[in-house]
Amino acid sequence: MRLRNKPWAKDKIAAYPQHVIPDPEAQRGRWHELFGNDGPIHVEIGTGKGKFLTEMGRLHPDMNFIGIELYPSVLVSALDKLIESGLPNVKLLNANAKDLTAFFAEGEVARIYLNFSDPWPKKRHEKRRLTHRGFLSLYERVLAEDGDIHLKTDNQSFFEYSLVSLSQYGFVLAAVQLDLHRSDVVGNVMTEYEEKFSLKGNRIYRCEAVRPPRRP
Amino acid sequence: MRLRNKPWAKDKIAAYPQHVIPDPEAQRGRWHELFGNDGPIHVEIGTGKGKFLTEMGRLHPDMNFIGIELYPSVLVSALDKLIESGLPNVKLLNANAKDLTAFFAEGEVARIYLNFSDPWPKKRHEKRRLTHRGFLSLYERVLAEDGDIHLKTDNQSFFEYSLVSLSQYGFVLAAVQLDLHRSDVVGNVMTEYEEKFSLKGNRIYRCEAVRPPRRP
Ligand SMILES: C[S@@+](CC[C@H](N)C(=O)[O-])C[C@H]1O[C@@H](n2cnc3c(N)ncnc32)[C@H](O)[C@@H]1O
Ligand SMILES: C[S@@+](CC[C@H](N)C(=O)[O-])C[C@H]1O[C@@H](n2cnc3c(N)ncnc32)[C@H](O)[C@@H]1O
Repeated sequence: MRLRNKPWAKDKIAAYPQHVIPDPEAQRGRWHELFGNDGPIHVEIGTGKGKFLTEMGRLHPDMNFIGIELYPSVLVSALDKLIESGLPNVKLLNANAKDLTAFFAEGEVARIYLNFSDPWPKKRHEKRRLTHRGFLSLYERVLAEDGDIHLKTDNQSFFEYSLVSLSQYGFVLAAVQLDLHRSDVVGNVMTEYEEKFSLKGNRIYRCEAVRPPRRP
Repeated sequence: MRLRNKPWAKDKIAAYPQHVIPDPEAQRGRWHELFGNDGPIHVEIGTGKGKFLTEMGRLHPDMNFIGIELYPSVLVSALDKLIESGLPNVKLLNANAKDLTAFFAEGEVARIYLNFSDPWPKKRHEKRRLTHRGFLSLYERVLAEDGDIHLKTDNQSFFEYSLVSLSQYGFVLAAVQLDLHRSDVVGNVMTEYEEKFSLKGNRIYRCEAVRPPRRP
């Protein structure tokens, strides 16, 4: 993600606390209260400019969506979409995925989306990949009993790595598409990266992985 | 596999009982005796014309290889390669994979190769796929504690299906290559189908999956 210098981004984010939740730790275990319903809570990690999240929110008014994005300069684009759409079931967090268990109680999340996560191709950066076992242990804790991860990427090596990492951690693959845009999956919502890379002719890989059973 | 009518195939096979074992049930639990060594036993299911099996036997004289092939008309080509090479560590079975547990004792097999298995694309033929859970339960029984399956195919749908089926059964993915011939895997031995389909420009998919721990 190209980072343009947007010194005003933090201020803008702070001006919309109804959209970008300023104190996610305080909501831990209470997100259903905040949304005011019992619908499932879906979390996207690395939301970027927010196209996927806001379109999902529009398509599924009975579900709740929370997007986590590290960079204010990127998050403001997602915020603009949210201001425009006024969706009550979509919230943003300007936060780091490594703090996930501070934001969500055990089992509070029904689904995690990993869309076009940074691949960190170098072996010495393996721990930064959002499908490294370190992150998987966080997802495992916040996911509900039958919760799952939905992952999309155009990066072949990252996808190969993720399939193995998920499986070795104990997640069970429920679906795999090796060419999403020429598959029988219906209702796919594209992300910004997905539009860009599929236009270039790249294949889009996708999988669904179900949380391992809680260990005794 | 195009089946040419070879009425003499069965007779030829019967003439080489040292290469094509006529009574595999009688060897159950005694394959190490037959090979005369303690090397690991690797089994290829659907050996076809035997290029992979005989090359593997040549490359790994310390290991033992058994190829199972249903059709005599195809197996004779593998037999010819075996006669020519005279490899003592390679044997063939003219048999059906569904009878695997009649041929091998629990834990007797270190590795199973599934190379370019028939994809059986129709849903109503799912049970015939060699990665259907019915077959996986046979592999689980004959595989050793740390035994694994090595699978290659150019068929995208069959590979997607196999990853999910293996994972749901409890096998753990240890490696995935989504474009084997442009990967860093070294020492890959090509099968007849692999040569044919990679020349056509098809990607070759590959995975390794480790047997689930024995259930109590
Ligand atoms: C390659 S972009 C993809 C954006 C979007 N998901 C898409 O598909 O268009 C990855 C995004 O993840 C964000 N990101 C990376 N690591 C993160 C982390 N640990 N916590 C939160 N966001 C992260 C980056 O800032 C970047 O915006
Ligand atoms: C598509 S061919 C691939 C041959 C070879 N492995 C290769 O890669 O060139 C599949 C082979 O599996 C054999 N086969 C299919 N089902 C089988 C079964 N249940 N038991 C034994 N062999 C089987 C077929 O007869 C055929 O020769």
